Order: sequence, then structure tokens, then C-alpha cells
Amino acid sequence: MSAPGPAVDASRLIEDLETLAGFGATDGGGVTRVAYSPTDLAARDWVDAELGALGLDVRRDPAGTTIAILDPSGSGRPPIAVGSHTDTVPDGGRYDGALGVVAAVACVRALCAGGALRHPLAVLNLQAEEATMGGATFASRAMAGALDAGALARPAHDGVPVAEHLRRAGLDPAGVAGAALAPGSFAAFLELHIEQGPVLESTGVPIGVVEGIAGIRRFVVTFSGTANHAGTTPMDARDDALVAAAPFVGVVRDVAVDHEVMGTVGTLRVHPGAPSVVPGRVEMDVELRSTAEPRIDAAERELVRRAAEMGGEALRVSTKAPAHFAEPLLARLEDVCRDAGLGHRRMWSGAGHDAGVLTAITDAAMLFVPSRGGVSHNPAEHTDREDCVRGAQALLDWVVAIDRALSAGS
Amino acid sequence: MSAPGPAVDASRLIEDLETLAGFGATDGGGVTRVAYSPTDLAARDWVDAELGALGLDVRRDPAGTTIAILDPSGSGRPPIAVGSHTDTVPDGGRYDGALGVVAAVACVRALCAGGALRHPLAVLNLQAEEATMGGATFASRAMAGALDAGALARPAHDGVPVAEHLRRAGLDPAGVAGAALAPGSFAAFLELHIEQGPVLESTGVPIGVVEGIAGIRRFVVTFSGTANHAGTTPMDARDDALVAAAPFVGVVRDVAVDHEVMGTVGTLRVHPGAPSVVPGRVEMDVELRSTAEPRIDAAERELVRRAAEMGGEALRVSTKAPAHFAEPLLARLEDVCRDAGLGHRRMWSGAGHDAGVLTAITDAAMLFVPSRGGVSHNPAEHTDREDCVRGAQALLDWVVAIDRALSAGS
Repeated sequence: MSAPGPAVDASRLIEDLETLAGFGATDGGGVTRVAYSPTDLAARDWVDAELGALGLDVRRDPAGTTIAILDPSGSGRPPIAVGSHTDTVPDGGRYDGALGVVAAVACVRALCAGGALRHPLAVLNLQAEEATMGGATFASRAMAGALDAGALARPAHDGVPVAEHLRRAGLDPAGVAGAALAPGSFAAFLELHIEQGPVLESTGVPIGVVEGIAGIRRFVVTFSGTANHAGTTPMDARDDALVAAAPFVGVVRDVAVDHEVMGTVGTLRVHPGAPSVVPGRVEMDVELRSTAEPRIDAAERELVRRAAEMGGEALRVSTKAPAHFAEPLLARLEDVCRDAGLGHRRMWSGAGHDAGVLTAITDAAMLFVPSRGGVSHNPAEHTDREDCVRGAQALLDWVVAIDRALSAGS
Repeated sequence: MSAPGPAVDASRLIEDLETLAGFGATDGGGVTRVAYSPTDLAARDWVDAELGALGLDVRRDPAGTTIAILDPSGSGRPPIAVGSHTDTVPDGGRYDGALGVVAAVACVRALCAGGALRHPLAVLNLQAEEATMGGATFASRAMAGALDAGALARPAHDGVPVAEHLRRAGLDPAGVAGAALAPGSFAAFLELHIEQGPVLESTGVPIGVVEGIAGIRRFVVTFSGTANHAGTTPMDARDDALVAAAPFVGVVRDVAVDHEVMGTVGTLRVHPGAPSVVPGRVEMDVELRSTAEPRIDAAERELVRRAAEMGGEALRVSTKAPAHFAEPLLARLEDVCRDAGLGHRRMWSGAGHDAGVLTAITDAAMLFVPSRGGVSHNPAEHTDREDCVRGAQALLDWVVAIDRALSAGS
């Protein structure tokens, strides 16, 4: 057992969560704080003011991400970074992103109160993590130098180009490339987040030690037939694309289970799509997710083969490689949990997060706390107060442990 | 064998078909002549002018249907009516409806040239037969006094209320109820139409003797699950509505085949419908068609039972009873074909037609000619010239036979 370190102020943490939930609060108990909107910027200003009052050097990068540095010794060493995001999906919940930011503020508060680190500490409030700006993790991709050429011209959730959203927020779209940071700019990035899935709650484990972010491959699988009048085309003369396509939904499920990946048919389009017309073409959106690329490879081969056997065609439309978190960071989190007597389990994240993107420029890792019913992106999103506090304290202990480990190693 | 009767002018028939196809001709070889549009009205004016030039008394009813009467003897008896419709679906074909109208004109021309009937002859060019005006057979329903209360307020294919389409065509929506005719207003209604299905072509039979119009029942079948994040919800923790719903598409096909009805899932809606979300609800539009109501009843019971077994719910949303054509009219058509040495077969229509609606006020029946590939409502719709001429001549012979039979019987 280590000696007791600095402690998170539980009441203040919950109070900060409540305050943050007031920015963009919806009638149904949810939050709408879409990236770059006035509500999002007001919430960000509030967080920045808290950090400034605690003595941090607060700035924003060209993509709008807050980077606040606490470096009492003026060492100028690469800081240990903690944080998450305060933007939300439209009508989202109060915990997704927000918990990780207020927990980072709580860490700063506890460290200022006593227990300085050997490394500087950086708090990141990343901008546009949610997939509202033509894709998810907009600002962390900018920070990792990984924004694609079309990212600024792409329509945002409301059809307005991303560049225009930046302009309205007082940012210069032409300067976004300047958000890129060199590898090694941070000593590490640690992110506390709600699980957004049911695993921790259903297994009764309070802390998830997240090994990485699943890779995602998306496919459009098309079945073609012949559109015809549903009243005049005899059953035995039909070439019905939906009759051919429908069994493939079960095939995706079976292949996913067999290969231990996630497999989903999220939607399906029937053409021409009228009650009185035999379907002539069906397209389905299929995705596979896993942290293990060889398993995705094997599942993809099987899906392509089965689609062809059934008269369909599977076309891969996007690929996102898995992100692996740094093993030494994970091991320290396990130490921290063990020392605190906290139940924990290794797991991976099926959802994308900034921490996954930032593995391109720094060691990174995540800590999950339970989501009630696994519900997220929804006003019903909930994490118990005790879990929020436990997660923030574990994050603080983790920061302290990493600070020691890095100092010992250097 | 009867003595040779009046003969259709084949060249003129084909020329008239070509002329009519010029109204609303599309680049792809199809026709767009949506009911009440200026193009539709121009085509109707042309047909009316042809009928007027042949000496008929031409008027339009309050729904815009042309009723043209040839009564050389001034008998005032209920006329034998022939005809079809000149409106089309957007980007439809050149034969659907049009053939029946130009064939009716050809009958008049042949009868004027020699071979007067004992009954007056009426040519009907019914308005809005296609389902562009918030439902099909708009004007024949008005003629049969069967328009429902909401018919005029309903949005047409373009979202504009049906009443507004009538007004733009110079008609008074408030007067449409005045289109209703008393039962017995016609001695019979005979309609030549393309099959719009593959049966005649595939069996090599030139003439279909249509016994009736299939009844249609439509259902919305709903499967409910739980929408969830496709990346964070383990395969064994999912309640995926599309995985539950997909096998029902095959069930509809199997039940239809078993009960010898038509069964179609024409479209399917997945909610919320995103690649990264496990489907939470699926609704499918299911329809059953048959001329035999007991078979539809049995198929419906089976579908409702199977849906419930699979966790879904089938809700009937509309019902259209089958329409049965008059047996004496069918027998005369068979006589005519036999006398002319024309192959023919009894069949039923899976598609709706004005003749089906008009059974409410008159004996009616239909004669089908082959559709190449069974294709209809499409620029590729085609019926061979020989089949068009054969159909028009059979229609003329049928009119003459009915005139004799009715006169003998009265």
C-alpha cells in the first residue's frame, strides 16, 4: 500500500458536473451542447475560467481545444495530460465527455491543495469529439496532424460546412492545421470516460482498464433483383431483392459471433420502396468492430464470401484501424485500483475516443466507469455519483502514479 | 362461325397510339402525363376532338372523365361503354391505359364506317386512374359514388392536395360528388388493357379473359428491440430489431406460396437507422393480394400468428375487396376469341383498374394483351403492334357480341 495521496473533493466534483449540465440543458433532462455552438462555447468558457482561477496557463489551439498547463516548477517538461470533451451530440447525456473534464479539474484542485507533481499537468478539453462535425474526434485529429483534406469542407450535422462552424466560433479554418502537435508533446494522456456500454454494470465491476479502441470497417452490401408490380408478378416469376437480402442480416450476426467481433446491420434501404412494388435493390450498411485486426480480417473474408454465395456484393467503404493503449499506463492503473481495493477489469472500447486518436502522438490510456443500462447519447444516460467520484479519484491516483513512474524511469 | 363483322383500322390504331405517346413524351422513351396536368389535359383534348369529329356527343363529368356517346338511333338506352384512361404515372409507359382508349376510338371508327349497334356506345376516358391523386382510380370511384370523405384533401403525388389539382384543371372540387352515376347507367363496361404482368407472354397466349381484380390487404408489421451503440453493446447483450425482423421477409413469401396468394414486403424502415446503432425498431409494409378472399383470410391469420411467434406485431392498415367481373361478359369474350381462332385464357388482375371499381354500378369485364417481360409503369413498357391490333379487334368483336346478346335477352 502506498501512503494516502491527494484526494478529490467529491461534493465539488458533483457540483461541477451539475453546473456543466446546466449549459444546454434540455427539458427531458439531457444536454444539447453541439461543438462550436454558443452553448458549447459558454460551457468551455466556464471550464477555462475555473482552470484559470486555479492558476493554470489556459490557451486554445486553432481547432478550439483548451490546453491548460499547471507547471509550478517551471520545468517546461512534457506534461502529463488529462481530460476529455464538453461537446455533446444533440439531446445527449450529462456524463459523456463532461465527467472526464470535471474530473480533470478535480485533479488540478486536489494537486494545488497539496501534492505537487514532478511533471507539469495539462488539462485538455478537446473540441468536437462527437460526430457532429462531419466525423468524430475532429480536434484530436487536428492535434494528431491526422485531419484529412476534405474535413473542413464536409457538411456538419446540420448541413453547414465544418469551416463555417469554426468561423462562427471565431476560429480561422485556414489555421486548423496549426493545431498539430509533435509526438512527445505530452508525457502521457489519461482519459476518464463513462463506458457507454453495459459490461461494467452487468458484471458489477466499478473500474474498466481500457486496452484500446476497436477498429471499425464499414461495408455496403447490395442485393439486386428486378423491381416489378406486386399485384401482377406471380410469386414464382419474382426476382425479389429483399427476399434475397433479408437472410444476410442473420449471417452478419452469426459471422460476428463466430469470429468474436461486433457485427451490425444498422440500416437497410429498399428500392424503389413502395408497398405495391417487388423490391429491385437492397443496400445494407454493415459494420464490423474489434480491437484485433486479424479477427476483423477473417470476419470480412467470411462476409464477402457469404454475400457472394447469396447473390449479393459486399463493398468496403471505410476502415479505421484499432488503437492500442500503452501497456505501462494500463499496468499503473491496475496498481492504483489494487492499492485502493477497487474492483477492475481489462476491456476495450467499441466506441471511438480522443485518447485513441492521440496514441499517434503520445502514450495514452483510458479508465471507464459504469453506464446505467449501457445507455449513452441519450438524456437517460446515467452514472451513479459514487462511480463518478471513484473514477475521478482513480484518475488522480493514476496521474500521481504515472508521475512517479516516469520520474523514476527518466 | 359468325359472318365477318366490322374491322379495326390497324394502321390508324397504331398511328393514334403514337400520337398519344407524343403528349408528355420523355427523353427515355416513356411518357409523363400525370392526371390533371396541362400535358394530361392536352392529350384528353386531342382524344375528345377525335371523338367529336366522329360525331359523338362529348362531355366531361365533374371529376374530369370524358363520357362520349354515339347513339345514332337516339334510343336513349343505356349504352355499352368501352374505354380506359390516358393519365400515366410519372415516367410511365406508352401502353398502360392509352391502348384501351385508342382501341375504343378504333371501335367507334369501325362502327361508324358500317355496322351500327342496337345499343348506344359510350367511350369513357377515365381521369386519374393511376395512384397519383392520393390513391388510384380517383374518377371511377367518383363515378361509382365511392369516394371517401377525405379524398379531396389528401396530398397528391407532389404533396399538393387533390382538390388543388382539380381547381388548376378548371374543375370545381365541391362538384365532384356529382360525378356519381346510378347503377344501370351503362349496359356494360368493357376495358382493353395491357396485362402489366408476364403470364400471357410467358405462356404464349395472346388474349387474357380477366375474371376479376384481386383484393388487397395491407399490413404494417413492427418488430421492437432496443437501440444501442453498435460499438459498445456486446453481441449477446443485444435486442436487435432487424435481426428479429429480417426472417419475416421469407415468412411472407412462404405463407403467400402456401396459400396461393401474392405476398410482398415492398419496403422496410429501420429506426434509428445509422451504421453505428443497433436497430431499435423495424416496420415493414406487407401486402397480400388474391381474388379469393378466403385465401387472403387464411394467409392473414397465418401471418399474424407467425409475426406474434417471432416477437412482432402485424396491424392491418387497409382492405380492398376483390372485384368480380360479369360471367356472361366473359363467356361472350371467349366466344369471340374462339370464332376468331385466337388463343385465350382466363386470368385475374393483380393490379387495380377502373373496370373493377365500376362493377359497383354496371356489369364489367376486361381483356388483357401481353406486356413484354411483364414490365409496366416504366419507359420500357411494351406491347407488340400485332397484340395491340388483335386486342382492339377482339374488343370490337366483343362489343358487337354483347350488343347482340343484350338485344336478344331484352
